[in-house]
Amino acid sequence: MSDGVEWALHSCLNLAWIGSGQAVTAARLAAYHELPPAYLNKQLQALARAGIVTSVSGPKGGFRLARALDRITLMDVVAAIEGPDEAFRCTEIRQQGPGAAAPESYAAECAIAGAMSRAELAWRRELMAQTLDDVRARAELQAPDAPERLRHWLAHL
Amino acid sequence: MSDGVEWALHSCLNLAWIGSGQAVTAARLAAYHELPPAYLNKQLQALARAGIVTSVSGPKGGFRLARALDRITLMDVVAAIEGPDEAFRCTEIRQQGPGAAAPESYAAECAIAGAMSRAELAWRRELMAQTLDDVRARAELQAPDAPERLRHWLAHL
Repeated sequence: MSDGVEWALHSCLNLAWIGSGQAVTAARLAAYHELPPAYLNKQLQALARAGIVTSVSGPKGGFRLARALDRITLMDVVAAIEGPDEAFRCTEIRQQGPGAAAPESYAAECAIAGAMSRAELAWRRELMAQTLDDVRARAELQAPDAPERLRHWLAHL
Repeated sequence: MSDGVEWALHSCLNLAWIGSGQAVTAARLAAYHELPPAYLNKQLQALARAGIVTSVSGPKGGFRLARALDRITLMDVVAAIEGPDEAFRCTEIRQQGPGAAAPESYAAECAIAGAMSRAELAWRRELMAQTLDDVRARAELQAPDAPERLRHWLAHL
């Protein structure tokens, strides 16, 4: 999984802490965690295409959350950044080579692909079961002053 | 996930169908599914290092299963090929940049990393719950003649 997933998740939490009304540039979001701005911008564009953040143009432009954190699951963010493909990609090698039977013998899903898909499904279910608001609540328990530190830094830039 | 996982899983099933006594070269295993032999050999060496197959040297050398399929889980094979790292790698960006607090504030795991780990655990649990023998049984229900096709091909090479 790319680092972009970690960056996107932290950026969503940061946007929530900043407040839904305010748009923040990718450069500022990147500076807050010393991330490369161009690459974070790419991740934020991906979140925008997925409808998780909104891209606002103009002098006060930037990104803001498109909906509340309790309506964004971890799966939404992972799918936005990593794409919809499963981690295990079946290339149907059972149909390749001298052991292959007639094509009509392969109507049923390969047993190996099916087994790997069950594990992928368990992973996706767990990602879907957790919203970013659950994560935010735990983060604030650990670091109650994190939102204020961020707002203070932004206000004094 | 690399194609190596798919290849390794099919190779383990093929070794079981060939029979535990017989060692088969990477070149033959590769030829049966028209895979690149050098790259399949690399995967089989990884399975050998993980104790899933045994590498046998000599004129009748090659690879054979190190233990029965009901003692090999999908997780064993995935870990052998992909390594032990979790898919999501936390780089602790919460500790980077102007918003970072004192290092002692970060004793607890990052809430984002913890949430992602719960999903990874669900995936690993499902991979651990399925043995290659479960997969073999389903594959044989779909294609009862698969083992015989393989043995016939090997015997007539």
